[in-house]
Amino acid sequence: MTRVEMVALGIGVISSALVGSMFLVGSSAPPAVVPTTDLAARPHLDFSGDLRKRCVESYFEQTLNHFEATHETYQQRYFVCEEFWRRADDKGTDGPIFFYVGNEADVELYLNHTGLMWENAHEFGALLVFAEHRYFGKSAPPDAATRLQHLSSEQALADYAVLLDHIKDTRAAAASPVVGFGGSYGGMLATWFRLKYPHVLDGAIAASAPVLSFLGEDPPANLTAFSQIVTYDATHAAGSAPNCAANVRRSWDVIVDAAATADGRAWLQAGLGLCDPFTSRDDAVGVRDWVKGAFDYLAMGNFPYPSSYIMNGASVLPAYPVRAACEPLAPSFASTKEGNFSLLRALGAGIGVYYNSTNDQVCYSRAAPSNASQVDADFWDYLFCSELYQPQDQGLGGDMFWPLAHNQTEDAARCLAKWNVTLRPHWAQTQYGGRKALREVSNLVFSNGNYDPWSGMGVLVDLAPTVVAVEVVGGAHHLDLMFSNPGDSKAVKKARAEEKKHIAKWIHDAAK
Amino acid sequence: MTRVEMVALGIGVISSALVGSMFLVGSSAPPAVVPTTDLAARPHLDFSGDLRKRCVESYFEQTLNHFEATHETYQQRYFVCEEFWRRADDKGTDGPIFFYVGNEADVELYLNHTGLMWENAHEFGALLVFAEHRYFGKSAPPDAATRLQHLSSEQALADYAVLLDHIKDTRAAAASPVVGFGGSYGGMLATWFRLKYPHVLDGAIAASAPVLSFLGEDPPANLTAFSQIVTYDATHAAGSAPNCAANVRRSWDVIVDAAATADGRAWLQAGLGLCDPFTSRDDAVGVRDWVKGAFDYLAMGNFPYPSSYIMNGASVLPAYPVRAACEPLAPSFASTKEGNFSLLRALGAGIGVYYNSTNDQVCYSRAAPSNASQVDADFWDYLFCSELYQPQDQGLGGDMFWPLAHNQTEDAARCLAKWNVTLRPHWAQTQYGGRKALREVSNLVFSNGNYDPWSGMGVLVDLAPTVVAVEVVGGAHHLDLMFSNPGDSKAVKKARAEEKKHIAKWIHDAAK
Repeated sequence: MTRVEMVALGIGVISSALVGSMFLVGSSAPPAVVPTTDLAARPHLDFSGDLRKRCVESYFEQTLNHFEATHETYQQRYFVCEEFWRRADDKGTDGPIFFYVGNEADVELYLNHTGLMWENAHEFGALLVFAEHRYFGKSAPPDAATRLQHLSSEQALADYAVLLDHIKDTRAAAASPVVGFGGSYGGMLATWFRLKYPHVLDGAIAASAPVLSFLGEDPPANLTAFSQIVTYDATHAAGSAPNCAANVRRSWDVIVDAAATADGRAWLQAGLGLCDPFTSRDDAVGVRDWVKGAFDYLAMGNFPYPSSYIMNGASVLPAYPVRAACEPLAPSFASTKEGNFSLLRALGAGIGVYYNSTNDQVCYSRAAPSNASQVDADFWDYLFCSELYQPQDQGLGGDMFWPLAHNQTEDAARCLAKWNVTLRPHWAQTQYGGRKALREVSNLVFSNGNYDPWSGMGVLVDLAPTVVAVEVVGGAHHLDLMFSNPGDSKAVKKARAEEKKHIAKWIHDAAK
Repeated sequence: MTRVEMVALGIGVISSALVGSMFLVGSSAPPAVVPTTDLAARPHLDFSGDLRKRCVESYFEQTLNHFEATHETYQQRYFVCEEFWRRADDKGTDGPIFFYVGNEADVELYLNHTGLMWENAHEFGALLVFAEHRYFGKSAPPDAATRLQHLSSEQALADYAVLLDHIKDTRAAAASPVVGFGGSYGGMLATWFRLKYPHVLDGAIAASAPVLSFLGEDPPANLTAFSQIVTYDATHAAGSAPNCAANVRRSWDVIVDAAATADGRAWLQAGLGLCDPFTSRDDAVGVRDWVKGAFDYLAMGNFPYPSSYIMNGASVLPAYPVRAACEPLAPSFASTKEGNFSLLRALGAGIGVYYNSTNDQVCYSRAAPSNASQVDADFWDYLFCSELYQPQDQGLGGDMFWPLAHNQTEDAARCLAKWNVTLRPHWAQTQYGGRKALREVSNLVFSNGNYDPWSGMGVLVDLAPTVVAVEVVGGAHHLDLMFSNPGDSKAVKKARAEEKKHIAKWIHDAAK
């Protein structure tokens, strides 16, 4: 992965993590873990088995371009799960609609992972809807790859508004309140859906949504926040070995120095445990990106219990995987050639938590585990280039990485060459307004875990009376959205309970 | 004008009135009337002379399609008037920006007529900006008529957001609050601008904005409201001759009966005072639309003092022109052929207030006075067909017109044939949300005069703590936006004072 690709991926780093799932089409859904062993007594909390089978998969003929009056349509996929829905003729009023605001992956991922929706459905009598984002999963228009101009967050939001009209119309459910849920980019979309369509969405839970990540934010977005929090996860304060971050930081010079000569590159290959020799100095220097990638993903997936989420279901990461990766990096290594070699060996072992999670690699091939489909990553890059430019810096704010600032000119050139689009560095801020817009709206919960690298661009303080921040101490990327787990901390339980209170209030207020 | 065209014009009826102006390019601006004779003592209230000369006319290279990442741009025109702007280095904080949210005509019209902005500019230390709506005035993209797909309210709102960024950036005025002003469709745009871009616009005065006119509104829009209020203007309660509405109502059957025979049509021609004979029964029946058009426009322009606004500056309508048109219709006419002829003569005389406002016609040509450019009317029709479908009924709610319901199938067929677009009857409601959206937002003033036919689709009651209705008793179409006039009623003065209070509060709150 080149630096340019890393930068270009931007929140795509998130997306990759999100795409990581064992629940993709064709695979069966494993049993969800619930916090009680007595499911017979609480059958509404039994979410074992294939959740997709409890929903109806449908396609809606959706307008391709909402902002120009063309006739074209495409088939948008969505799932509706009715089992918990309380209708007015049963008890008082119609139950609400819980609406997952689909992001940049197959919507089955969200259906299978958004425990917060499933686990609260019974109590609220909610209809569950999982809507797929245009151009992802099975919701691509014909010739999608050659007609990317209709891929945009604005079109996606309009899709959701129209789809909800359809769902309500066909069920005579005009009065049902609608609560949005989304994580990561889905959390950004949920936020913007509430901002732009307050008549459609009564409130939203936006988990790990980096809505303050754009240029033009006031005060400015901290572009090194991602790397800083990855670094934080590798410190004693976050439970990792005290020397870890310092050792990682020190390794970059060791790598660059060694890359200068053929002997050095062979030494580097051996130290890190790579299968193949480096082909050039640049190739060897580029191994830094590959190493950083492991820490980035492990930090996002720094959950308190073993989880396969980040690994796309192919393998299981240990609890607190950053701590695990830091274990080999605990010692002090001498500033000698031997010491440096030991450091490289430790680094190689550390990133093995990610790159050898299957425990069957005798050496590293430097191919990252496939936790995002190429087409999803590409389409995310199109969004990055066309409207959601989230530049990132590193090594400039005390983090453990080498200094590298984003280069807008370079990004613009790359986006033009790759997608034939003009980079619009300020559009997202103009369109969605960041903090300033959020101070003007209502009924939004922003949850963020301090182990999640994206939390540094999220809403961490209340911005308005009902636009509130919920902290998940010790939480990584949208942990609160997931199914309950015996390993859940008090913090995440508390966060979910707070979210539930807000949801109840939004539904109550909407009924007025 | 055929019925289809009338219906199609919908709010275009508004637009025609708005376009009516003596201030189009090339004509000089006449002295504005101010409520004091001592302008020397209050030079900041002297708005005589050509107001355009007090502003800088500029063009901004604007993105043609904000929702797809193309490279195309067009030149958007706007005027900036700086003379009253208070900068931070003078007194405390930067003054606000008063932003006219341009609607479907040459923006010079709004620059010259929006007295509410000019008359308050000094006191608030405001920068005045008048922004032109894409595809109107001088802000048409190249080949506009053949590339109408980029004409939409959503694109226009995005234009305004981007333009305001530019204006603020180039003046280091990031902290200046922005207050929007708009009348009619401009009032709708101001409303939607605040709804969708609360981070850009701190509040808006939406005058005579029929934002509750769309299908899907709850409770449903009253589609006969326009005709009902035109009728109201022709009753004793609105100061007109008591028999007026009844006589007008009675005339339709007289016209249709007469149209059946050649003799009857000749009699009809003579009675109404038309220059040319009718060519057929349908032609004669169609004269009803022509007659109704006079009452529609006179009702919109039913101002308390003589005004040339509705007549595009070419002539002056008397004070309360509906009352004037009703004067000949005051008597009771016998139900005899002679009585009917007298009724037709009275009707012909009444509509002469509109069709013979120049007092130089010996007979009527049935060509309506030109108070809208054809291209503006056409482009408005495109908006009506592509996204802003405002159907109208008449004669079904006790008004004085013959019964005629809108026909959505017919409208859709016409729109497809004319513009090759699919009519979207529910899109405006999905996108902008009507009442339900307005209950969720803040800082909006909806002013409506009860003489204005469009007020029946406007916001007449407060919808949220700071989303308020301001009544202009005895006011016609956005009277409150205009320059002060010695003939102003207490009601309009009170409305303007209330608006001023809200503006002051928005500015104050924005500074926090």
